Amino acid sequence: MNGAESLIRTLICADVRVCFSNPGTSEIHIVQALDRIPEMRCVLGLFEGVISGAADGYARMSGKPACTLLHLGPGLGNSLANLHNASRAKVPIINLVGQHATYHLRHDPPLASDVEGIASTYSKWVRSSSSSTQIGHDAAKAVIAARTPPGQIATLIVPADVAWSDGGSVAMLPPLPQAAMPSTSSIERAIDLLRSNLRTGILLSGSALYGKGLVAAGRIASATGARLFAPYPVARLERGAGLPVVERVAYVLEQGIEQFREFRQLILVGASAPVAYFAYPGKNSVFTSADCKIHTLAAPNEDLIGALEAVAEAVSEKREQAFGQQLERPPLPKGEITLPGLAAVVGAILPENTIIVDESNTSGRGMMAATKGVSPHDWLGNTGGSIGIALPLALGAAVACPERRVLCLTADGSAMYTLQALWTMSREKLNVTTVVFANRDYAVLKREFSYLGAGSPGPRALNMFEIGRPDLDWVSFAKGMGVPGTRVASLEAFSKALQDGFDAEGPTLIEVPL
Amino acid sequence: MNGAESLIRTLICADVRVCFSNPGTSEIHIVQALDRIPEMRCVLGLFEGVISGAADGYARMSGKPACTLLHLGPGLGNSLANLHNASRAKVPIINLVGQHATYHLRHDPPLASDVEGIASTYSKWVRSSSSSTQIGHDAAKAVIAARTPPGQIATLIVPADVAWSDGGSVAMLPPLPQAAMPSTSSIERAIDLLRSNLRTGILLSGSALYGKGLVAAGRIASATGARLFAPYPVARLERGAGLPVVERVAYVLEQGIEQFREFRQLILVGASAPVAYFAYPGKNSVFTSADCKIHTLAAPNEDLIGALEAVAEAVSEKREQAFGQQLERPPLPKGEITLPGLAAVVGAILPENTIIVDESNTSGRGMMAATKGVSPHDWLGNTGGSIGIALPLALGAAVACPERRVLCLTADGSAMYTLQALWTMSREKLNVTTVVFANRDYAVLKREFSYLGAGSPGPRALNMFEIGRPDLDWVSFAKGMGVPGTRVASLEAFSKALQDGFDAEGPTLIEVPL
Repeated sequence: MNGAESLIRTLICADVRVCFSNPGTSEIHIVQALDRIPEMRCVLGLFEGVISGAADGYARMSGKPACTLLHLGPGLGNSLANLHNASRAKVPIINLVGQHATYHLRHDPPLASDVEGIASTYSKWVRSSSSSTQIGHDAAKAVIAARTPPGQIATLIVPADVAWSDGGSVAMLPPLPQAAMPSTSSIERAIDLLRSNLRTGILLSGSALYGKGLVAAGRIASATGARLFAPYPVARLERGAGLPVVERVAYVLEQGIEQFREFRQLILVGASAPVAYFAYPGKNSVFTSADCKIHTLAAPNEDLIGALEAVAEAVSEKREQAFGQQLERPPLPKGEITLPGLAAVVGAILPENTIIVDESNTSGRGMMAATKGVSPHDWLGNTGGSIGIALPLALGAAVACPERRVLCLTADGSAMYTLQALWTMSREKLNVTTVVFANRDYAVLKREFSYLGAGSPGPRALNMFEIGRPDLDWVSFAKGMGVPGTRVASLEAFSKALQDGFDAEGPTLIEVPL
Repeated sequence: MNGAESLIRTLICADVRVCFSNPGTSEIHIVQALDRIPEMRCVLGLFEGVISGAADGYARMSGKPACTLLHLGPGLGNSLANLHNASRAKVPIINLVGQHATYHLRHDPPLASDVEGIASTYSKWVRSSSSSTQIGHDAAKAVIAARTPPGQIATLIVPADVAWSDGGSVAMLPPLPQAAMPSTSSIERAIDLLRSNLRTGILLSGSALYGKGLVAAGRIASATGARLFAPYPVARLERGAGLPVVERVAYVLEQGIEQFREFRQLILVGASAPVAYFAYPGKNSVFTSADCKIHTLAAPNEDLIGALEAVAEAVSEKREQAFGQQLERPPLPKGEITLPGLAAVVGAILPENTIIVDESNTSGRGMMAATKGVSPHDWLGNTGGSIGIALPLALGAAVACPERRVLCLTADGSAMYTLQALWTMSREKLNVTTVVFANRDYAVLKREFSYLGAGSPGPRALNMFEIGRPDLDWVSFAKGMGVPGTRVASLEAFSKALQDGFDAEGPTLIEVPL
């Protein structure tokens, strides 16, 4: 067994079952191993930002890592922007990155670069495998690193001669690391705060926002009157009728300050205290009031669910069902396209159990309100603020959950960074309905310009904010990658296209000119 | 004057006149400064790999740096793959990368990351500006770093509060660093080698491959019978009728070994000894024979032109014109599309003074032979082996040379990484004719698979090498970005489309299904 085969077989034994890949010559023996080992599903991407974003989406929905297969330093470089987002989502990912044969590097061939340096920027664990006898063990360690709570990016660099040399063996996986419970004093302090009469917010993140974590948080909120929040950069939020109400923190500084003004206590569960994305001259970046006590119940790497259940046990009388969101669906609107109208259409016809991937930015600000009371669904946001995640994230979520529909809401400017994802959706016949909000602007930048005190943008600045001239034609892009697309000019047309998308086998795209 | 304004004004004084940009909120005050300072041409890209590749193309053709404007760590990350290629092209580039306000970073906002770490991977000079009073000086130092021979990547990180704070001043540029002449012994040794009767090759790179450097190299070749070579990863090669004949080193290991078999001496001028891109099991990576003496006349950072002129002076009798390539143009072929036929069409109708950007990979192997005797032109290759450079490189070359035509020859797999460049070509009305060789394969990988001893690829491997299913439709992509496109099915149609492209105002695209 060569090194490459021991690598892939070890990953299979460790329940890594999907490889998002864009290989090159230095990864050929890994491809050869993948060719022979059908237990690993290989999903080709035509640009590496698609691959890292897809691995993020897969991990958010499956709770386990996919691996990526990337070509040397430049391939890894292309993946960095969405690895940034993944690092903020705190998901497990295992990058496999090829490297030149060890004896070839001294020639400084054209593709040589500092692969470890590039990997170190967003990986919590980096290793260059040193021999074919060791790479199985390295793969097992990569899995352990990736699955160290709450989830981490691990990068294993594989020299070509390590991959092709004999002597490999499949490594056994040691027990996966488990998240530790927070200290008793952290839990008791949270209970004390919740028993006070002060207005209390609970800011949840990670596994506290879906499944058992969310149920426990809901029990606490019902029993104590505390309000639940999710960060604006939310990785995954389960929501809808019957589920605990979780309010998303605002993006805009003033709105965030307003949102937290009433609270004298904020309990953090896997989250950090809410702050503005950016600093503004003369303004404080912090959302909470100066007299708001902030207590960390559980750090991101601790057992969020266990902590919430322990607190719920203490503050709620019995194991009653938490108060949940009422069922409410907006009526299906008609007429001219407006942002509230588009949001209402989504709310009116969203199928149960949909995964919504949201990078609609300024165009989608009404989407959460319009969908809060519809059938339960998951909401996946941009966790790191690097735009260009929506299409890849939707791709990865669809690979993880083939039985569910995925609705991808994306701004046009964002989608342009990683539009190649449409091709993979088409090839893999993934049930992703993509809505492109085509305002032909980096609209947020126009707002930020004056908000930052820079006045009104002149024509040269507007040339950097407006992405029309020429207009991007998303129906053509979709067609060019085998995805049926349509452009809509009314809410009726949008409703029909959206319903058709949900009913279709495979991906569709709807361009909404704004 | 705030820091941002002093930054841009200093760059203007240093003759930096083009900014390839994709800004975000943290760069707003730099945009504000650019808004007010019309001496800097701003060219928006919708993905940062377009921007870094364009800056490379601009530098190759203008000999001076453009600046880029990139958004934080992820924006810089997206630019890395083509910065890799630029670092191998040894061109000057000045990256301006925004950073959070200094006092905001302690909050660890979502977009925080190790910007310096990301910059360090491909930049020879990195600095985070510490205050608005210093940033002008930092900008001047960035220019000096970028223009340190032969050309380097310099990255200046600009915290938002440094950009928006007052107290900036325009810095004077110290004299630009000049390349030093190689040692007298290096020059004398080269002269001795050339006066021997041994078969001698001269491998040229950088400024030795065009203009005065090429003329001097041609004199040496004429006088001594030495043969001139350019690396396969060539940044810029001037060629055509009347110019010295320079042979490009082969990509394939065996072909390279054959090419250099006859030589007992190899003189390097700004180049490194030729090696294979990749290692192959049981094979030596080196192209030259074991008994070939290798002598470095001039290192990349030395005065290549001065060194060649000194040697030419010594070995050639008088300042005679070097023997040049004979004028020869292939006749215009007709009929079915074949690779030699496509190459002949290009050779038959290429306008004088065209800039050819070549990333046609396996499909374009006959292009150099078919164009060797046509009117003089420049040939720009992929210097670092990271595919996805052609469209951005063509864009940048066209910005640098608005009076010249640019012919961009690209493989479909390569073009897919940075297809967003078409939009910028359209917006800027650049005279770029793009030919996409649509073989719907990462064809080189199929060849490398067996070449590496991995046997024949099975269906799962082929799924990672074949990029059809669905086919990419380049005419639709072009349409979607405002570029007139056409698909051709015969050599006659290709000839017409190519001629139409050369006659057009603005960009066009031709898809050639293979």
